[in-house]
Amino acid sequence: MKIIFIGDIVGSPGREAVERYLPRLKRKYSPDVVIANGENAAAGRGITKRIFDDLLRTGVDVVTMGNHTWDHKEIYDFIDETDYLIRPANFSDEAPGKGMTTITKNNVTLSVINLHGRTFLPPHGDPFAKATELIEEAQKSSPLVFVDFHAEATSEKIAMGWHLNGRASVVVGTHTHVQTADERILPDGTAYITDVGMTGPYDEILGMKKEDVIYRFQTNLPVRFEVPKKGRDQLNGLFVELDDATGKALHVERIMINEDRPFEV
Amino acid sequence: MKIIFIGDIVGSPGREAVERYLPRLKRKYSPDVVIANGENAAAGRGITKRIFDDLLRTGVDVVTMGNHTWDHKEIYDFIDETDYLIRPANFSDEAPGKGMTTITKNNVTLSVINLHGRTFLPPHGDPFAKATELIEEAQKSSPLVFVDFHAEATSEKIAMGWHLNGRASVVVGTHTHVQTADERILPDGTAYITDVGMTGPYDEILGMKKEDVIYRFQTNLPVRFEVPKKGRDQLNGLFVELDDATGKALHVERIMINEDRPFEV
Amino acid sequence: MKIIFIGDIVGSPGREAVERYLPRLKRKYSPDVVIANGENAAAGRGITKRIFDDLLRTGVDVVTMGNHTWDHKEIYDFIDETDYLIRPANFSDEAPGKGMTTITKNNVTLSVINLHGRTFLPPHGDPFAKATELIEEAQKSSPLVFVDFHAEATSEKIAMGWHLNGRASVVVGTHTHVQTADERILPDGTAYITDVGMTGPYDEILGMKKEDVIYRFQTNLPVRFEVPKKGRDQLNGLFVELDDATGKALHVERIMINEDRPFEV
Amino acid sequence: MKIIFIGDIVGSPGREAVERYLPRLKRKYSPDVVIANGENAAAGRGITKRIFDDLLRTGVDVVTMGNHTWDHKEIYDFIDETDYLIRPANFSDEAPGKGMTTITKNNVTLSVINLHGRTFLPPHGDPFAKATELIEEAQKSSPLVFVDFHAEATSEKIAMGWHLNGRASVVVGTHTHVQTADERILPDGTAYITDVGMTGPYDEILGMKKEDVIYRFQTNLPVRFEVPKKGRDQLNGLFVELDDATGKALHVERIMINEDRPFEV
Ligand SMILES: [Fe+2]
Ligand SMILES: [Fe+2]
Ligand SMILES: [Fe+2]
Ligand SMILES: [Fe+2]
Ligand SMILES: [Fe+2]
Ligand SMILES: [Fe+2]
Ligand SMILES: [Fe+2]
Ligand SMILES: [Fe+2]
Repeated sequence: MKIIFIGDIVGSPGREAVERYLPRLKRKYSPDVVIANGENAAAGRGITKRIFDDLLRTGVDVVTMGNHTWDHKEIYDFIDETDYLIRPANFSDEAPGKGMTTITKNNVTLSVINLHGRTFLPPHGDPFAKATELIEEAQKSSPLVFVDFHAEATSEKIAMGWHLNGRASVVVGTHTHVQTADERILPDGTAYITDVGMTGPYDEILGMKKEDVIYRFQTNLPVRFEVPKKGRDQLNGLFVELDDATGKALHVERIMINEDRPFEV
Repeated sequence: MKIIFIGDIVGSPGREAVERYLPRLKRKYSPDVVIANGENAAAGRGITKRIFDDLLRTGVDVVTMGNHTWDHKEIYDFIDETDYLIRPANFSDEAPGKGMTTITKNNVTLSVINLHGRTFLPPHGDPFAKATELIEEAQKSSPLVFVDFHAEATSEKIAMGWHLNGRASVVVGTHTHVQTADERILPDGTAYITDVGMTGPYDEILGMKKEDVIYRFQTNLPVRFEVPKKGRDQLNGLFVELDDATGKALHVERIMINEDRPFEV
Repeated sequence: MKIIFIGDIVGSPGREAVERYLPRLKRKYSPDVVIANGENAAAGRGITKRIFDDLLRTGVDVVTMGNHTWDHKEIYDFIDETDYLIRPANFSDEAPGKGMTTITKNNVTLSVINLHGRTFLPPHGDPFAKATELIEEAQKSSPLVFVDFHAEATSEKIAMGWHLNGRASVVVGTHTHVQTADERILPDGTAYITDVGMTGPYDEILGMKKEDVIYRFQTNLPVRFEVPKKGRDQLNGLFVELDDATGKALHVERIMINEDRPFEV
Repeated sequence: MKIIFIGDIVGSPGREAVERYLPRLKRKYSPDVVIANGENAAAGRGITKRIFDDLLRTGVDVVTMGNHTWDHKEIYDFIDETDYLIRPANFSDEAPGKGMTTITKNNVTLSVINLHGRTFLPPHGDPFAKATELIEEAQKSSPLVFVDFHAEATSEKIAMGWHLNGRASVVVGTHTHVQTADERILPDGTAYITDVGMTGPYDEILGMKKEDVIYRFQTNLPVRFEVPKKGRDQLNGLFVELDDATGKALHVERIMINEDRPFEV
């Protein structure tokens, strides 16, 4: 099975970048499944039904979330109506939605799990224990398991990679919005990258207007961050190919598209 | 001027990787200046006089530090005796050592500045104001200015890059120990990367024994982290070439050496 | 000089408690000056012009602030128009308003300083250095200096008390909304209390509806905290008497009014 | 049943204060049970077997702990050998020791539970869920339940008080080392105080040498904090009386002994 994962889609520039590049990426990589992190899809904060539907229409199969899951209240109305929008599995049992889903394409089933880190972040449930629990459950249906670990600290993300080495097919990090260059296949067959990076504005800070973010760092005064609608954009993602029989990763490749690194066929 | 920067050297595996690869990197890139972050050089915690001298002997010209600056008490004895070991400039005025130095090679002078982030970190002095102050001072002697910004959050690091766009020649991030793939030359001529990554063990977590780090995340019980002496290593760095007249960056290139990406001539 | 300080006034229940009890407190203590922390006066978040004017009319002479200073945007319009509303002095130089003011009553002048802690809080300027700077300035006009240190950690607040021992007349802590029982006069004449406590709802959590706060702790799900309008209230404050000639504290006394400890003449 | 609780005993000054005052407190209050927080008993960091035995000999029946539980490695050797030393119940299942114990005096059984907060602290297990679980278990043997909630934030501690209102007999906060003045009996019969305060040096910062702590706040430079052996001391505690049949609190009273508030018979 071939999979493309697209990192945190930020606002309309991010959604437009997906629309522009995903068809070309599909021609280049022929993915069976496309997964995208959509926690910032609605103007940087959460996701709406319309935006979720648009992402599916654009060719995304499963959307994962993160700390911005509940930013747009509308999600409460539709997260339980779909199988293809998941939120971190180690959120409270009280939380709407679910943290794992499965998708079957060309007779191959993949489980997709979303988890949330706790370093420099709120004290959600233990993501390491939850990962073990869900992977055991997932492996009853298929050895192919994809994990989006939404976390801040590189230590926690690398720890999750090694924790799931040989148990998950893929562990990708999201949340820091900067792609790391450490993609690799760990010794027991798990494709890993610390952070996939973001999709949206290229000349701003995590997708937000850079002048505002710099002003905040300089003054600690309140600023309402906005996603600029104009300017150059970028798409960051990951391509992985898995062995359908064993779920082991065969190939991992970073996808980074921006004006300094134009899309190449 | 050509510069090689080597990311956080962790323990003896990191120092050995520098010894093994730096001569080859020098042959490949012919750098005028080699800078390295040495905050983890002594068994992961700080630096000693012997290790500092060894790094100079191996071909490093200037050593920068970070949050681990004072971990090894010995540094208090020699940091004020040398011009080639600097610590974050926005540390307290009470702190020994200094945060900027200059080095002249082949008649070209480069200022090297070390700064420390404050997001998820202690409340040091304002790094944005300090950067402006030091760059103004530096530019009296030469337009070539190199900044190592030791920080956790990608937002704070990218903010510093844009803050110094056109004022510093190079802004590299350190501290997260994972190389990012976002190296670029910002529009006004500043070479930038969010994190250069670390130099040391390849199969551990930030250079520390992975089993211990995972155990800590799983249990929150105290563990004494150690740098394993055995195993595969990695070197992460950055090569930049600057225009001697303007200080603008002409070229930026990531250096990543590990068993999955062997050194190439 | 006799001073009454009223701890963080939260919403309309807090303002009503001030209206109800301040006249009686004035009869009991005959204060020359009344100071109140107003950072939560507007529905728990910031302050408005109307509320500020009402507080002055009720008998408050000077209002101090804290981390909620900018919550209500209206403050930008009037903070620079009055001498009797101050915000933490170690906020950015870019911030509107000022961090110190003076008030003269019955021929005695008192300086009032507002400072902000940095432990578990954003990296504002150094409050210890700023305290020294402002007290030196204040002492040019009068030895009577009152400090409201708005901070979270007991360690940082006690440190400020000892730091200003003999230099400030009074150091009160605010922000945790719970009155501490450690009021004392430090050996060199500074009246000190770690936290004065809040003024507002008595049966809630920091003034916010308790069910919502508990739900947030249990689930980490987003909740909009509100100040309940109904229910029993409390007023927490401090009374201090200073020597007009030396500025030393002569007497310090906690004020705590709630249904379990009714107001006593 | 009558209970005395003694707040965080810090180093030898704290232990000596217990030795000096506990006999007098026993004469005054005739407690059936004495509980003390011992997380700082060994020079400010953890506890040893000798110190634990000494505390029992001095008249303490049960010792609770907190974030410093594991500071002194010796505890690993004896925590599982005794029923009268407990550590926070929401620590990892991998942790030695236990988080609840029972003690029977004069035919009345009391359960003692230790819990740990998560705000500004590591992501331990959910203390609210664990509290419910343990109280249900405890109430099978007796309605008398005492909870020491070791936490930083006033919000989290007050939330625990209301969460257990009518279910626990007593909820005391520890950890901030400053006694709060908000002791009360909540509407459904739970005695509550946000923090009992510490026992040890009176003129220092949380029991540690004040000059060092102030230096650290001023410089962010590393300092090894020490408990001064000389100087005045203080004891902070709480006295509660419970209804043996219902477990409801009948009376709550703060105990604060220092040179400004000498022991009174
Ligand atoms: Fe994101
Ligand atoms: Fe995120
Ligand atoms: Fe490092
Ligand atoms: Fe570091
Ligand atoms: Fe407040
Ligand atoms: Fe506050
Ligand atoms: Fe503690
Ligand atoms: Fe303690």
